[in-house]
Amino acid sequence: MDMTIDPIRAARAYLLGVAEPPAPALSMFVEALGPVEAAARVKAGEVPDPVRDETSARSARDHVEADLENAAAAGARLVIPEDDEWPGWPLLALHNACGRGLRWAGPPLALWVRGPVALDDGLQRAVSVIGARAATSYGEHVASEFGYGLAEAGATVVSGAAYGIDGAAHRGALGAEGTTVAVLGCGVDVRYPAAHSRLLDRIADTGAVISEYPPGTPPAKHRFLVRNRLIAALSAGTVVVEAGVRSGARNTASTAAALGKVVLAVPGPIGSAMSLGCHELLRLGAATVVCSVPEILEAVGQVGADLVTPREKPKRSTDGLGDQALRVHEALKTRGGLSPEQVSSASGVPLSRVRALLPELELTGLAARGEEGWCRLRS
Amino acid sequence: MDMTIDPIRAARAYLLGVAEPPAPALSMFVEALGPVEAAARVKAGEVPDPVRDETSARSARDHVEADLENAAAAGARLVIPEDDEWPGWPLLALHNACGRGLRWAGPPLALWVRGPVALDDGLQRAVSVIGARAATSYGEHVASEFGYGLAEAGATVVSGAAYGIDGAAHRGALGAEGTTVAVLGCGVDVRYPAAHSRLLDRIADTGAVISEYPPGTPPAKHRFLVRNRLIAALSAGTVVVEAGVRSGARNTASTAAALGKVVLAVPGPIGSAMSLGCHELLRLGAATVVCSVPEILEAVGQVGADLVTPREKPKRSTDGLGDQALRVHEALKTRGGLSPEQVSSASGVPLSRVRALLPELELTGLAARGEEGWCRLRS
Repeated sequence: MDMTIDPIRAARAYLLGVAEPPAPALSMFVEALGPVEAAARVKAGEVPDPVRDETSARSARDHVEADLENAAAAGARLVIPEDDEWPGWPLLALHNACGRGLRWAGPPLALWVRGPVALDDGLQRAVSVIGARAATSYGEHVASEFGYGLAEAGATVVSGAAYGIDGAAHRGALGAEGTTVAVLGCGVDVRYPAAHSRLLDRIADTGAVISEYPPGTPPAKHRFLVRNRLIAALSAGTVVVEAGVRSGARNTASTAAALGKVVLAVPGPIGSAMSLGCHELLRLGAATVVCSVPEILEAVGQVGADLVTPREKPKRSTDGLGDQALRVHEALKTRGGLSPEQVSSASGVPLSRVRALLPELELTGLAARGEEGWCRLRS
Repeated sequence: MDMTIDPIRAARAYLLGVAEPPAPALSMFVEALGPVEAAARVKAGEVPDPVRDETSARSARDHVEADLENAAAAGARLVIPEDDEWPGWPLLALHNACGRGLRWAGPPLALWVRGPVALDDGLQRAVSVIGARAATSYGEHVASEFGYGLAEAGATVVSGAAYGIDGAAHRGALGAEGTTVAVLGCGVDVRYPAAHSRLLDRIADTGAVISEYPPGTPPAKHRFLVRNRLIAALSAGTVVVEAGVRSGARNTASTAAALGKVVLAVPGPIGSAMSLGCHELLRLGAATVVCSVPEILEAVGQVGADLVTPREKPKRSTDGLGDQALRVHEALKTRGGLSPEQVSSASGVPLSRVRALLPELELTGLAARGEEGWCRLRS
């Protein structure tokens, strides 16, 4: 047992365990009194009613030592707002939203973190890539490509480690040897989903597995929804790759929007049930369409810093021709020749203009004068 | 030879042949002087310079009788603004745009029409469905479904009779025994593209094949672009099903937007080159995403007349539960029982609330009290 637990860290570990997140009243109580004093008051039951509502069920629970030991055994640490690496900047959105009365938006009191990445560095330029668990192969392909491309561009890929889109996004980022962060709806030591046990280990090897739930906390539906606010908050923008009509991904998207973050949605075949949610986000104007990594970077990046190179349009030899020149060129035939009068009649361009335009077309290699008259050249 | 050609019709037939459309200066000249006087002046060369520029190349061309005969032989008629069936209302957009100085937007001086549909009736509720010639099977499937669904809903499907999306849209409408209108970039008697000869016949059997080019006029690239303004103008909205980066469909879309019409784009797989144009329209905010016929009807319909039925979201037995009830429900296990104290600690919900919520969950069939305590029921 570690006898050197600093009292602030111990207080925050206690507070994380005593209330089911998000606990906005407790958050404000802690901000007002500081964690040590707040923890002592919660333990003693000397708290205002809203804080009591959030904490009474577990105020007797003091598993701080066990939590810290279990975390250490899983290779995890507790990161607290007092630490240098605390990602205060991205989480500011939750503070602000909480202040605006969005009670689901309470900021985390601390975060359990498994993995070598310092959260402040790792989340400086982060994009979340999320979507349906029952993803299609199309969706998984896109998620994996986006994960890879974002990581390659130096962005951190945040997701929820679920089956389908989440897993594909994490794997893509790992494939590019980039940084990826998984935010869980259970303890950082809980291997859920079971088949992603190895994936979670790989994420923790180079990136971070994060949770606000004490070690050992089992997953639960409401915890995934609560967790979604962290995914939305910790990234500059959220990309929804595939989502059904009713889905957690749409919940994350609307949370991200409420937090003032960029929301992007990937289009897909209109017959695909897994793209319905994305198309509805687009139709309602709740998300912007996104088709490539450069487009994501442009949308979430600093203004002007990551502009997409405009797509090169295929060039044609007749590009740059004026309206009348184009009509004259069209009127010519590739076989046989025409007189300027015939070209004028066929094109509707005045004869004087035809007489001027034909030599211009000849110069650019688009027309030629033969024995039978003027003809068109294929460039 | 028909000796009873009315002079107005003859004048307009002459004017259609004498200038390559669009001929905005000639249009305004005709509006000012009336078609008969305008035609006489053009023939005599007594016109202002802008009109001369548009007409000098062919002013000697007077093929009116031949044009009318060829049209009649192909089962076509000349519809003029003086006719009851003239689609003046949809074409108003071209008049207005022309007045705003959009010179490509000159309204047609008349229209050659092959088919039984009266243009004013047929175009009262029209949607154009357009897209790439080199469409994918996905695009053709969507175009065909939309053509069918729109026709079934009583809308006229307007398109360009080209390969790919256009053809699929027409065929879909024909499949529903609906009205479909093809607007051509060549004479109404020209079988282009050759492989659509039979399709053009079928369209003309029940709908209409339309062109502002005199019978016999060969197709030309610039004519398709000019024709696109008619497709855009004659419909309340334009649906782009598939489009490459550079495509005629995008030209029609931007024309439709400039004319104040609704522009819709169908999303597709992001890897498909044939969806690039649609996605770019969406990304630039130049089009609204559309995935179904009801969505099209809502977008182009009269306000409130064709609202989409909101998509039914899958219902869950826990729908309607409050935040705390949900957490209590989640904390229960399907096997074994828990005491209210245990539920309170697991859920973080105060004990007093747990004691109130458990019986509520029991009433709705979501929880049960057994000998070992409270457990969760699968609904």
